[in-house]
Amino acid sequence: MKRVIKNGTIVTASDKYVADILIEDEKIKSISDQIDEPEAEIVDASGYYVMPGGIDPHTHMDMPFGGTVTADNFETGTIAAAYGGTTTIIDFCLSDKGKSLKSALEKWHSKSQDKAVIDYGFHLQISEINEDVLNEIPEIIEQEGVTSFKVFMAYKGVFQADDEVLFKILVAAKEHGGLVMVHAENGDVINYLTTKALAEGKTDPIYHALTRPPEAEGEATGRAAKLTALADSQLYVVHVTCEEAVEQIAEARSKGFRVYGETCPQYLVLDQSYLEKANFEGGKYVWSPPLREKYNQEVLWNALKSGQLQAIGSDQCSFNFNGQKDLGRDDFTKIPNGGPFVEDRFSLMYSEGVHKGRISIHEFVDMVSTQAAKLFGLFPRKGTIAPGSDADMVLFDPAVERTISAKTHHMNVDYSALEGIKVIGEPVSVLSRGKYVIKDRQFVGRPGMGSYLKCNKFGLK
Amino acid sequence: MKRVIKNGTIVTASDKYVADILIEDEKIKSISDQIDEPEAEIVDASGYYVMPGGIDPHTHMDMPFGGTVTADNFETGTIAAAYGGTTTIIDFCLSDKGKSLKSALEKWHSKSQDKAVIDYGFHLQISEINEDVLNEIPEIIEQEGVTSFKVFMAYKGVFQADDEVLFKILVAAKEHGGLVMVHAENGDVINYLTTKALAEGKTDPIYHALTRPPEAEGEATGRAAKLTALADSQLYVVHVTCEEAVEQIAEARSKGFRVYGETCPQYLVLDQSYLEKANFEGGKYVWSPPLREKYNQEVLWNALKSGQLQAIGSDQCSFNFNGQKDLGRDDFTKIPNGGPFVEDRFSLMYSEGVHKGRISIHEFVDMVSTQAAKLFGLFPRKGTIAPGSDADMVLFDPAVERTISAKTHHMNVDYSALEGIKVIGEPVSVLSRGKYVIKDRQFVGRPGMGSYLKCNKFGLK
Amino acid sequence: MKRVIKNGTIVTASDKYVADILIEDEKIKSISDQIDEPEAEIVDASGYYVMPGGIDPHTHMDMPFGGTVTADNFETGTIAAAYGGTTTIIDFCLSDKGKSLKSALEKWHSKSQDKAVIDYGFHLQISEINEDVLNEIPEIIEQEGVTSFKVFMAYKGVFQADDEVLFKILVAAKEHGGLVMVHAENGDVINYLTTKALAEGKTDPIYHALTRPPEAEGEATGRAAKLTALADSQLYVVHVTCEEAVEQIAEARSKGFRVYGETCPQYLVLDQSYLEKANFEGGKYVWSPPLREKYNQEVLWNALKSGQLQAIGSDQCSFNFNGQKDLGRDDFTKIPNGGPFVEDRFSLMYSEGVHKGRISIHEFVDMVSTQAAKLFGLFPRKGTIAPGSDADMVLFDPAVERTISAKTHHMNVDYSALEGIKVIGEPVSVLSRGKYVIKDRQFVGRPGMGSYLKCNKFGLK
Amino acid sequence: MKRVIKNGTIVTASDKYVADILIEDEKIKSISDQIDEPEAEIVDASGYYVMPGGIDPHTHMDMPFGGTVTADNFETGTIAAAYGGTTTIIDFCLSDKGKSLKSALEKWHSKSQDKAVIDYGFHLQISEINEDVLNEIPEIIEQEGVTSFKVFMAYKGVFQADDEVLFKILVAAKEHGGLVMVHAENGDVINYLTTKALAEGKTDPIYHALTRPPEAEGEATGRAAKLTALADSQLYVVHVTCEEAVEQIAEARSKGFRVYGETCPQYLVLDQSYLEKANFEGGKYVWSPPLREKYNQEVLWNALKSGQLQAIGSDQCSFNFNGQKDLGRDDFTKIPNGGPFVEDRFSLMYSEGVHKGRISIHEFVDMVSTQAAKLFGLFPRKGTIAPGSDADMVLFDPAVERTISAKTHHMNVDYSALEGIKVIGEPVSVLSRGKYVIKDRQFVGRPGMGSYLKCNKFGLK
Ligand SMILES: [Zn+2]
Ligand SMILES: [Zn+2]
Ligand SMILES: [Zn+2]
Ligand SMILES: [Zn+2]
Ligand SMILES: [Zn+2]
Ligand SMILES: [Zn+2]
Ligand SMILES: [Zn+2]
Ligand SMILES: [Zn+2]
Repeated sequence: MKRVIKNGTIVTASDKYVADILIEDEKIKSISDQIDEPEAEIVDASGYYVMPGGIDPHTHMDMPFGGTVTADNFETGTIAAAYGGTTTIIDFCLSDKGKSLKSALEKWHSKSQDKAVIDYGFHLQISEINEDVLNEIPEIIEQEGVTSFKVFMAYKGVFQADDEVLFKILVAAKEHGGLVMVHAENGDVINYLTTKALAEGKTDPIYHALTRPPEAEGEATGRAAKLTALADSQLYVVHVTCEEAVEQIAEARSKGFRVYGETCPQYLVLDQSYLEKANFEGGKYVWSPPLREKYNQEVLWNALKSGQLQAIGSDQCSFNFNGQKDLGRDDFTKIPNGGPFVEDRFSLMYSEGVHKGRISIHEFVDMVSTQAAKLFGLFPRKGTIAPGSDADMVLFDPAVERTISAKTHHMNVDYSALEGIKVIGEPVSVLSRGKYVIKDRQFVGRPGMGSYLKCNKFGLK
Repeated sequence: MKRVIKNGTIVTASDKYVADILIEDEKIKSISDQIDEPEAEIVDASGYYVMPGGIDPHTHMDMPFGGTVTADNFETGTIAAAYGGTTTIIDFCLSDKGKSLKSALEKWHSKSQDKAVIDYGFHLQISEINEDVLNEIPEIIEQEGVTSFKVFMAYKGVFQADDEVLFKILVAAKEHGGLVMVHAENGDVINYLTTKALAEGKTDPIYHALTRPPEAEGEATGRAAKLTALADSQLYVVHVTCEEAVEQIAEARSKGFRVYGETCPQYLVLDQSYLEKANFEGGKYVWSPPLREKYNQEVLWNALKSGQLQAIGSDQCSFNFNGQKDLGRDDFTKIPNGGPFVEDRFSLMYSEGVHKGRISIHEFVDMVSTQAAKLFGLFPRKGTIAPGSDADMVLFDPAVERTISAKTHHMNVDYSALEGIKVIGEPVSVLSRGKYVIKDRQFVGRPGMGSYLKCNKFGLK
Repeated sequence: MKRVIKNGTIVTASDKYVADILIEDEKIKSISDQIDEPEAEIVDASGYYVMPGGIDPHTHMDMPFGGTVTADNFETGTIAAAYGGTTTIIDFCLSDKGKSLKSALEKWHSKSQDKAVIDYGFHLQISEINEDVLNEIPEIIEQEGVTSFKVFMAYKGVFQADDEVLFKILVAAKEHGGLVMVHAENGDVINYLTTKALAEGKTDPIYHALTRPPEAEGEATGRAAKLTALADSQLYVVHVTCEEAVEQIAEARSKGFRVYGETCPQYLVLDQSYLEKANFEGGKYVWSPPLREKYNQEVLWNALKSGQLQAIGSDQCSFNFNGQKDLGRDDFTKIPNGGPFVEDRFSLMYSEGVHKGRISIHEFVDMVSTQAAKLFGLFPRKGTIAPGSDADMVLFDPAVERTISAKTHHMNVDYSALEGIKVIGEPVSVLSRGKYVIKDRQFVGRPGMGSYLKCNKFGLK
Repeated sequence: MKRVIKNGTIVTASDKYVADILIEDEKIKSISDQIDEPEAEIVDASGYYVMPGGIDPHTHMDMPFGGTVTADNFETGTIAAAYGGTTTIIDFCLSDKGKSLKSALEKWHSKSQDKAVIDYGFHLQISEINEDVLNEIPEIIEQEGVTSFKVFMAYKGVFQADDEVLFKILVAAKEHGGLVMVHAENGDVINYLTTKALAEGKTDPIYHALTRPPEAEGEATGRAAKLTALADSQLYVVHVTCEEAVEQIAEARSKGFRVYGETCPQYLVLDQSYLEKANFEGGKYVWSPPLREKYNQEVLWNALKSGQLQAIGSDQCSFNFNGQKDLGRDDFTKIPNGGPFVEDRFSLMYSEGVHKGRISIHEFVDMVSTQAAKLFGLFPRKGTIAPGSDADMVLFDPAVERTISAKTHHMNVDYSALEGIKVIGEPVSVLSRGKYVIKDRQFVGRPGMGSYLKCNKFGLK
C-alpha cells in the first residue's frame, strides 16, 4: 500500500523544507516538492511539521521493582508513547545473577511480543561479570541484536556493580562493539545517608533527595568517565541531572573520549521543591537520581545546546500514586522510584525547548530521535526522514496549546507529574513503518504491531 | 533543464542513503529511491558520495596586503574552490576608515562580479565605530545582505580595533541580527615581541611563530568571548589554532553563550616545525595565528568532534613564494601572511577526518558545509541536499588516492603548502545551482556564473 | 632605651607561644620565656596577643581624585592606621605623563614627611612607557627604594594603560627586580556601559556597580595574568572582589606563575546591595571595583584560606559624605571612588576571620602583615616578631567587643562604611620601632615619627 | 642542663634571622641576638642554618608486607632519619580485621619502644568499620593520642576499604577530631590491569607502573575529596604523584574544603623511566603509586609552591634489593612496594627546592616540618623554633656538596634509589629535645631516647 504525506514541513536533525513524502512497503520511497501518485492514499500535512518519530532510549515497561511492578506494560506503555509522538522505545531488560543473559532477554521478549504497538529494542542490565557472562556477550551482540549494557553504580546490595565489574564490561564492550550505560550515583554514600536518615526518623519524600546529593552523582559520573577513558571504551550516562555530572561529561568529551549523556524532561522542568509537597504528594516526584535544585535546569539546557549531552530519555517507570507510591508513606526508601513520562517527553521538549527558544528545531529532532538511533545502532533505519528509512513519523501541530493531565493522558497510571502544565504543540498523527498508530489524535493501531529491533554494533557512522 | 543524479550515496549532516535526485530550475526537486524522468539528463553517481557543495566561510580573494595583493582573485580562486568541491565562499570585504561601509561593499562587488564561478557572500571587516558606521549597519544587514562583521584584535596600528569598538559592534550585532567575527590575537603583545625580535636580529620565518605565542591567542579569544557574554551577543572566532583558545570557547559555550569557533585545515595537518624549513621555505607556512606545536592538532580534532568548534574555513589568502612571500626573506614581518587552501580544504578534511576515523561523515559535511550555511544565514538554500535547496553538490569518489602538488592544483600560486601529501577521496563532478562547474574533473563553467548571496540575519534556525 | 613586653602570647605567621620580648634601639633583641632586665620599662601583655604590626599595602593618602582630594592625609591617615593596629603603609604615588618618575616621588615625599606617625613606603603608578621612563626604572628601584609599579587597566582616558604599556612594565620589572601591580577591570567595556547608563538617565549609585560587572574584572585579571606568564614576570592584583577574578589568579598560580592577589575587607563583609541604600546613602559604598553579590564573600574567604589570595589591603581612600561623595548625587560617575578602611582592616579581619573560625590566627597575621612585607621587600625588617626585626607590634585584646562608628573612629571622614558593625578584639597598644604610637587606646605619638622605607627588590626570600 | 646555640641563622616557616638560642630542660627557653649564659654548653652555629627538626609524616618501620618485613626497624630507621635531619616520624600502625584497634597500637608500641632514637607518633590504618571499631575511635583519639586514620582505596582483597567504610570514617573523624588519610588509587581497576598483564606474560617492573595509571590515582583522589566534602570532614591524601590527583585536590581546596596533600621526594626527582632499568634494577623503583612521567615533577613543584600540596613524606618502606625486591624478578606484583627515603627527604628537598630556586627556604621548612606538626596535632611542640617548643633542631650547612650512596647512607638497606645523585647542603648536628642525636655528622644518641608523642585533635590552630 502506498501513502503520500503532502505539503508538510519536513524537519530532520539537519533540514527543514516543504515537500511531499511517498511511503511504500513500510519505507520512505521518495521526497519531492510534489508527488502525484494516483493509487496512493493522500494525507494532508499542510501546517504540520513532519518529523521522524521519537525514539525513547530509556523505558522500563512491565518491570518489577521492590515487590511491585510498573503500572505500564508494553501495551499501555507503547500506546501512550505513540500518542506522544514516539515510535521506538529501547527498554531495559533486567538480568538475574547466576542465570544466562539470554534467559533474561527471553523473559523480556515474552513481556513485549504481541503487546507493543511500536517498534522496540532492548538494553541489557548486567550486575555480575564472570566467565559465563563474558562468553555470552559476543553472541548477545551479534545474534540477539542487543548492543548496549547497563551497569548500576547505586542500589547497593541489589543492582550495584563494583568498579571492577564496570571496567570489565567497558573492556568487553570495546572489544565486541557494545555501548556501556551507567546509572551513576555513588551507592555506598547513599546507603550510608539513607540508613542514617531513617534512623533519625526522617521519612518524608524530601529525604529521598537529601540523601542522594548531586555530589554523589557527580562523583560516580566522573568515575565512570575516567574508567571509560582508561579502557578506551564508550559510555552513555543515563539520566544526568546536575551540574556536577555535566562537568564530568564535558571534561571527558573535551579530551576526545567517547562519553555521551542523556537527560530527562523531568530534570528540565521540575525541581527538588516538588518533593516537599504536602500530603505525601511529594512521593509522586521520586526519581533516582532525584529532582535537583532549580538552577540545574539551565545547566542541563546549556549542556544540550552545546552538545555535551546528546539525548533525551523519559526514564518511563510508572507507579500508581494509590497502592504503589504510597507504600513509602512512612518510609521514603519504600517509595517505588520513577514516574510516567513516555507520553510527554516529545511534546514537552518541543514546547519548553523549541517554542521557548532554547534550542533549534533541528536540535530538538536530534535529541528526541536521531541521536538515540545513531548511538544505539538503529540509524538510518530509524531517526530520520529519508528515502530508505522506515516510515516512522509524526505529524505535529506546532500551534495548538493544551494542558497535560492524568485525566486525558494514556498512560496506565493514576497521576501525572505534569498535571496542569501547558504545552504548545501536539502530535496529531503518528505512523509506524507507514501504518497509522495514531490518526487524528486517536489510537488506531493494535497490540503486537510493533516489532523487535536488532541493534547494530556501536560505531562511528 | 532537468537532471537526475542516479544511484549516488547521498550524505548530509544527518543522513546517508542511496537514492536518486531530480534537479530542475537550479533547485533540488525530489529525492527518491528511483526516479524515471525521460527528458532529464542522467548522471550516474554509482559509487560516489553525493554531498552538499562545500561552503568556505573564510576566503580572501583579490585582497591587498602589505603592498602586494593575493595571487588568487575571484576567478582563479573560485575555479580552484570548485575543483576542490566548494560551491560557496564567503569572502572578507575590507573597509576603509573614514569611508562608508557601503563603498567597501561596492569595491568588493566590482572585484567579484563577472569573475566568480560559484556563489559567494561577504563578511564586512570594521575597524572603527562612530555614529556613521553605527547608522549604516542596519541597512547593510537588511538591504545589502551582509550580516557578519569582522573585527581584528591584532595588527596594531593597521586593522586592530580596541575593546570598546569590539563591544559596540557586539551590541549592534545583537540588536540588528548580525554575527561578529574576530581575529583573536593580542596585538599589543605581538607588537612588542616582533619589534624586540627584529631589534635582536631575529629575522627568520620561525620568529613569526615565536613572536605570536598561543597565549596571545588564548587571551584574546577569552576576552572576546567574555565581552560577547556581557553584551549577550554572538561571536564567531575565526582560525582557532590552539588549546588555549579552544578552552576559552568551550567554557563560554558551556555557560550557554552563543560563541562559535572555526579552525582551518592547516592547523590540523601542519605544525610549527614547518616554519623552520631551510632556504626560506619556512616562509611558505606563515599564517596568523601561526602554525602551532603538534599536540594542538589533537586538541583541535577533539574540539571539532565534541562540538566546541563548528566550522572549517580555508583562510585562503595566497601569495606566490617567488615575488611575494620572499619579500620577507630578511625580515619575517614582511612575509605576506596566508596561504593557498581553498582547493584542498574539503578533500583534506575528508581524508584526514573521515578516512582516518577521527570524525563521522556527517560531522564532516556539517563542518565543511552545513554549519557555515546555518551560522551565516544561507540555510537551507545552501548546505544540504533536500527538496527546495539549491542544487549545489559534489560527486565525491571516496576511494581514489592522489597526491597534492602545485603542479596539479588550480590555484594561481606557485607552491602548495601540502606538496606531496597523499589524500584519499576526490571531487569528481561539482554542480552549482544544477549546472556543472566541474565535470569529470574538468572545469566546464565560466566566469560570472556565480551569484552574489544575500545572507539572512543571524538566528536560531 | 629598653622595653620588655612581658607575658604576652606572641603570634606570628607561623608561631604562637607565651614569652617575653626585649626591645632595644628600635629592634627586637630577644625573646625568652622570662626576661629580667632591670633597667627596662616593663609592659604587661598578659592576656594579650602580641602580633607584628599590621602592614597595609594599599592606601591613598592626600590623593587628588576627580577635582577633590582624599579626606585623610598622611597625618590623620596614619594616626588612624596606628589606632587600628597598623604600623606600616605602602601608599600609591601617582605620576604625571610627561614628567619624570622621580618628580612624582618627590611630590609624595613632601606629602608624607613630617606627617606620618608610622613607617611608610611607596608604590609608583605608571601610565605611559617611553624611553625616559624605561631608563628611569632601574634607578627608582636601586636608589629610591620603590620596587612596585602600578598599572591601571581601567579609567579610560585618565589612568588607563594599554596592554603594550603593561607588557613593557612587566618585562622591565622582571629585568630589574620590580613587582607589577594592576587595577584589573576592562576600562573599555566600563566606559561604554557608564556612558550608556547615563544616557538612559540611570544616575543612582547602584549603577556604579551595574556598569562595572564582575566579568570585566575577571577578564582584565586573566589578561594581566597571561601577560605576566608570557613575560615570565611577577604580578600583584590589587583589590580582587569576585569569583571571576579569583579563578584567573588560581589558574595562573597552579601553573607556577608568580601571580599574587589582594582583597580588601569591604569585599569580605559588604555587598552590592549596600549601593541601593536610600537617600544617596549608597554613595558611601562606591569602590572600584564595586561591591559584589554576596556569594562572592565566601569565594574570597576560600581563596584566602587556600592561598590563592595572599594579602589584605584597605584601599584606604576616604572622602566625606557631605561635600565629596555627594558630588555624585545626580551622576554616579561623579562620586569619588573609595572609602575609609585603614583603621578597621586589622580588627575586622581578626573578628570576621579568626573569631568566626574562617582562618587560623597564623593565616591572619600572614595576610594582614607578613605577606605584604615579603612581597614588597620589607621582610624581615617588618612583618614578624623575631630578634633583629623592627619592634613594630600590636598588643591585641582578643576578648573585647566593640562597635565601629564614625563617632569614635579616628579617620578624618564623616562616616563609616561599617557603622554599627560589632567586632571582637581590639588593638590596645601599638609600637613603631619600639616607641608607643598608641598606648592604652590613646595616641601618644607625633607627626613625623614615621620614616620612609626603602623596599628591597622583589625576590624569593 | 643548658645549651646555647650561638650565631646560627635561625629559619622557620616564616622567619629568618641571626640569633642565639638557649635550651634548657629539653625546651627552647630564649632567643636573643646575644645570649651569655656562663654555665651553658656553647654550640657554635656560625654559617649554619638552625632549623626545626624535620617531621616525616609517612614512614613504615618494621612493617610486614607480602610475606617479608621492611629492612629498617624503629632503631635503624630513626637513626637514619636523624642523620638526615629528621627529629620526628609518624609511622603507620596496621590494624587487623576482627581485632581491636588498641591491640594494633600495642603491637606498634612494642616495635618502637626502646628502639627509636627520635620522637614518634602513630597513624592508625583501618580497613573495616563496625560497631566495635566506631566505639573505639573516641578513646583512641582522646586517650591514645592517635588522631589520624588511614584508609586504603587500593590493594583489593588485602587492605582496600570500600566507599562506605571510607565515608563512615570521615564522619567519625569529623565528630571526634580526627584526620582521615587515604592511599588514593582505584584498586578495582588496578586489580584488573595487573591480572591481565600477568596473564599476558608482562612481568617486568615497568608493568608495575603501566598497570597503575595516573588516571586511577586521579579518580580515587577526586572520589575521596568529594566524599570528604559531603561529610564536611577533613582529608589528607598521602603520596600524591601526578597532575590528575593535584587537580582534584586543588579543586576541593578552592571550594573551601579541608583537603590536604602530601607528596614524596621520589616523585619530585625520579620518574617512570627508572622502572625500565636493565637487570631488574627497575625493581628498586617500585612504589605505589608508581613513579610517573617526568612532566609531573613540575606539576608537583607548582602545587607545593602554590599551596595546593602541604607536606613532604618519605613513605620510607625499605626492602633490600637482594632477598626482598628480587622476590618479584619474575612477577612484578611480587616486588615489595616501597623504598628507602627517610634519610634523604630533608636534604633532597633543600637541594632540589631551595638551592635550585624552586621554593623559598620558609616554604621548605613549612613542608618538611611545620605543616606536618600542624596537621597532626604536634604544633607548637614540634615544627618550629620558638620559646616553649621542644628543642628539636638541625644545624644545617647549606654550602657543602655531597653525593648520596648506599655505601655511606645509614639506612639498613643494600641500595639507594638516589645512588650517585649530588645534593647541596647537609645536616651537621641534630638535637632531639635538646640532646644531640647527631653531633658533627656522627650518631651520638642511643636507642630508646625517642618518646612516643600523643597527637592532639585535628583543628584550625
Ligand atoms: Zn537509573
Ligand atoms: Zn531508568
Ligand atoms: Zn585573521
Ligand atoms: Zn583570514
Ligand atoms: Zn584601584
Ligand atoms: Zn586603590
Ligand atoms: Zn600508600
Ligand atoms: Zn606508605
